[in-house]
Amino acid sequence: MSGPFSGSLVVVGTGPGKAELMTPATAATLARATDLVGYGPYLERVPERSGQCRHASDNRVELDRARHALSLAASGRQVVVVSGGDPGVFAMAAAVCEQIERGEAAWRQLDVAVVPGVTAMLAVAARAGAPLGHDFCAISLSDNLKSWATIERRLKAAAEADFVIALYNPASKARPHQLGEAFALLRSIKAGETPVLFVRAAGSAEAKVVATTLAEADASVADMRTLVIVGASTTRRVGRWVYTPRGAKP
Amino acid sequence: MSGPFSGSLVVVGTGPGKAELMTPATAATLARATDLVGYGPYLERVPERSGQCRHASDNRVELDRARHALSLAASGRQVVVVSGGDPGVFAMAAAVCEQIERGEAAWRQLDVAVVPGVTAMLAVAARAGAPLGHDFCAISLSDNLKSWATIERRLKAAAEADFVIALYNPASKARPHQLGEAFALLRSIKAGETPVLFVRAAGSAEAKVVATTLAEADASVADMRTLVIVGASTTRRVGRWVYTPRGAKP
Repeated sequence: MSGPFSGSLVVVGTGPGKAELMTPATAATLARATDLVGYGPYLERVPERSGQCRHASDNRVELDRARHALSLAASGRQVVVVSGGDPGVFAMAAAVCEQIERGEAAWRQLDVAVVPGVTAMLAVAARAGAPLGHDFCAISLSDNLKSWATIERRLKAAAEADFVIALYNPASKARPHQLGEAFALLRSIKAGETPVLFVRAAGSAEAKVVATTLAEADASVADMRTLVIVGASTTRRVGRWVYTPRGAKP
Repeated sequence: MSGPFSGSLVVVGTGPGKAELMTPATAATLARATDLVGYGPYLERVPERSGQCRHASDNRVELDRARHALSLAASGRQVVVVSGGDPGVFAMAAAVCEQIERGEAAWRQLDVAVVPGVTAMLAVAARAGAPLGHDFCAISLSDNLKSWATIERRLKAAAEADFVIALYNPASKARPHQLGEAFALLRSIKAGETPVLFVRAAGSAEAKVVATTLAEADASVADMRTLVIVGASTTRRVGRWVYTPRGAKP
């Protein structure tokens, strides 16, 4: 505990779905909380505990949620902010830091911590073999908070420098066409036979893997719960496995 | 179980260090093994269990280790290959897939699985705040298996497209100068005030964080147990936190 507050705030991630992929550090943190703050579906993954208050909020209100969590902590509560996956990857840890910067000066004295978790692309990769076995990047296709031109610039750079590319938030009802545009851009640079994986609900019992090629990839396969991985030039398919060798000198 | 074999092979990662950051799925897999195969220091993180055989090997013999593990599984053993961090990120899952491709045809019938874990950059990011809060890439600076020209090309592309950059294997006794060269390249593209983090042993009790800027980053701070994160143009330092906002439309 630091500073003038008796409350605290910890940002955690529940992992990709199954309880067995949530770190023990996260489970212990959740058990100690007086208040859980998060997007409803992520809170539902946390076992109910008597005396614990739940503050479920809608998606896409990350900054409001972070402010609420910081206020609760400042009022003396032991607050846990619940993300899915890892809280530091396209999730709540950045929103909490942003509100510490924007919000009340005293919040900088709060006892705040982040506990890491298993982010979606790692669960997806494990299902498929080892597609992230060598240099890779992670890009969110959501243009809620950045321009589509920025996304295109990053896709182009990643393709030209031959990174494996993990696409978070590949599609939503509000953005049905972007993944198709991303595939079109990648096809102009990368070979048609490049392996592409669509993995839905990777860390859950209902996980579904579709392995195809860039030439044949159908963007409509993806929804909000899908993560897409596009291979590098070295990424290979062997039986049911897709993997990227640790590199081969030319 | 699938195919003609009674043995099995599972590739796991112990996470970044502390037991509380190892997934329960990994712990349960380790408990069921008859044989553990891995680099010595990673095996030492696994509690001893009577009746379990340990096959420790040297670093940098990943393909030999994978072949040995596959042979043991083919002979009927319940084999677990132990990586640090996540087994799919610069670790053993790719080597196992590579040996399934290169090795005996019957190995393709083996019961093989990969269990995800917390890779080093996530533990590093959690220590520092949320530097990976937006689009990022992971690059291994080791040129054992790829050319330095490939590494430079990826660093340049990542800097120009404004990714946050996580550098795995930034330095070793055999490669003391590469991180300095990487910083020089990045300084030619990115602003001097770009936040840079050196985090040593992120997931352990002895974790050490150095937050500095690209202009002042001293490559000699890094060793084999260090992971380096170089921010994007939007990455910010606020008190003791470093974070990358989830994006701001121009």
